[in-house]
Amino acid sequence: MTGQVEIVEVGARDGLQNEREVIATDGKLGLIDRLLAAGVRRIEVASFVNPARVPQMADGEAVIQALPDRPDVSYIGLCLNKRGVLRALATREGGRRGVDEAGCVLVASNSFGMRNQGQTIEEGLRENREMLRLARDGGLLPQVTISAAFGCPFEGHVPPETVIRLAAEMAEAGAVEIALADTIGVAVPAQVEELFARVAEAAPAIRLRAHFHNTRGTGIANAWAAFRSGVDVLDSSLGGLGGCPFAPRATGNISTEELVYLMDRSGVATGLDLEALIEVNHWFEPVLGRAMPSLVARAGNWTGAATAG
Amino acid sequence: MTGQVEIVEVGARDGLQNEREVIATDGKLGLIDRLLAAGVRRIEVASFVNPARVPQMADGEAVIQALPDRPDVSYIGLCLNKRGVLRALATREGGRRGVDEAGCVLVASNSFGMRNQGQTIEEGLRENREMLRLARDGGLLPQVTISAAFGCPFEGHVPPETVIRLAAEMAEAGAVEIALADTIGVAVPAQVEELFARVAEAAPAIRLRAHFHNTRGTGIANAWAAFRSGVDVLDSSLGGLGGCPFAPRATGNISTEELVYLMDRSGVATGLDLEALIEVNHWFEPVLGRAMPSLVARAGNWTGAATAG
Repeated sequence: MTGQVEIVEVGARDGLQNEREVIATDGKLGLIDRLLAAGVRRIEVASFVNPARVPQMADGEAVIQALPDRPDVSYIGLCLNKRGVLRALATREGGRRGVDEAGCVLVASNSFGMRNQGQTIEEGLRENREMLRLARDGGLLPQVTISAAFGCPFEGHVPPETVIRLAAEMAEAGAVEIALADTIGVAVPAQVEELFARVAEAAPAIRLRAHFHNTRGTGIANAWAAFRSGVDVLDSSLGGLGGCPFAPRATGNISTEELVYLMDRSGVATGLDLEALIEVNHWFEPVLGRAMPSLVARAGNWTGAATAG
Repeated sequence: MTGQVEIVEVGARDGLQNEREVIATDGKLGLIDRLLAAGVRRIEVASFVNPARVPQMADGEAVIQALPDRPDVSYIGLCLNKRGVLRALATREGGRRGVDEAGCVLVASNSFGMRNQGQTIEEGLRENREMLRLARDGGLLPQVTISAAFGCPFEGHVPPETVIRLAAEMAEAGAVEIALADTIGVAVPAQVEELFARVAEAAPAIRLRAHFHNTRGTGIANAWAAFRSGVDVLDSSLGGLGGCPFAPRATGNISTEELVYLMDRSGVATGLDLEALIEVNHWFEPVLGRAMPSLVARAGNWTGAATAG
């Protein structure tokens, strides 16, 4: 197998968002610096949400203002509404570096959307159309994640037709990339293949991204299924950081180490250095104060080389 | 997707073998009973190894003599040499139930074979030919696992040609089923697809089984790749029990809960009841005295049904 895949590192945002202990701004910046040194070139750095609701993200602007001014890196700020996009745009005022991408979010279920953002699907669609326009007009790369695309914690099954319609509408509204997110970690490969194929058919001009959680152990299988279906942009988090607010004991995003291991051993280029990522993992665990779920970081890399052992 | 898959539960043998604390015979029997109640119909129950080397398996005969006499269940005893097969046969003497299958083991690497069984590949081949004959002549179902088929902890890369040749020789020698085992948990799906396809071509009449460890997080992806390649018999262990003697912090076999979740949600019948398996997991954790890696058992099942939440 050959090819390449772009990995979007989401540990510093999606990964940390569910952590109860707030990581100091310096810890987040140290994590981001080390991830860039390991080869990461697209990275979620903060979420423009209400700090009262998500205290972990309260220092979003402070993190962003301290980021290295790397022209080869794209920084993503997550935006749940127009207010979030305005905050993303504000990070660039006065000639500052700021973020490069507005990562907008559209929920594919009414119940989940009401709980997460106080919006029905239709309200989310209207809001996201304006968010994408605001972002683009302000010089941010406008992209959108359709969350709960593979299942909803309240409504259960999410009709593929809903996801397909939302993707087509977001493409029409100017999104340059659309992610399908398995927010609660329920997807399986056959479902991934089918949904991405149908979305690609409905929105052929758009770049697709996949966002998986390993809540039920299927995340890496889903990532491979997405890649085999032609999706060459994948989200993951260092160490498999993250969680699921609807399953308190659940693990988080698929681990960047596992994803890079999968791709390295499959002959697919990622631009990331697995040994360096494992070092970042071992550096970050004491900062975080708990073990992370990544298995590769525990077992070690394996390249097929003979050992002295 | 439709179809069906046969799951071989290996928790009571491969799963427990690396546990330092010896589980009492009653605990093993309780585990096996509950697994059968959850729908398991093929199950590894013991390994006929030197009790000085593997104290966890010292009560193998005692476990076997206390097994329920179920005509619908196939009990597997693992055999590393002729002596092991003779012990397997002895469990049936005097009209006793005993085991049904001799699970023979052939290592696909000289270095690993020498360390594990004191045999080179060629010595292993000779031994296994005799083991298969002994087993068959004694009325046991003769099957063989080619271990380290996807990589060796010492030699690294294992040539597919070696595995293909061993499989063809074992088919010729009368094995009714051949498993390819990723003993150290290094495989990736593209490799799984290629190796099983080539083995199926070289030994077309033989039933193939897949045995994966989730050491580096790719186990479920590999299981799906094997199934999609036509392999419809898969090993797994409750809770993801097990380990890797060459990676002390590594996790074990792929988890039965995850495998059943994957298949349930893909429309593939397993005959196993996932809710019951999760209950067995929660029952067994205090017996084992530590948390097991299964993620589904922690996060809970998800069927796509709406919830009241």
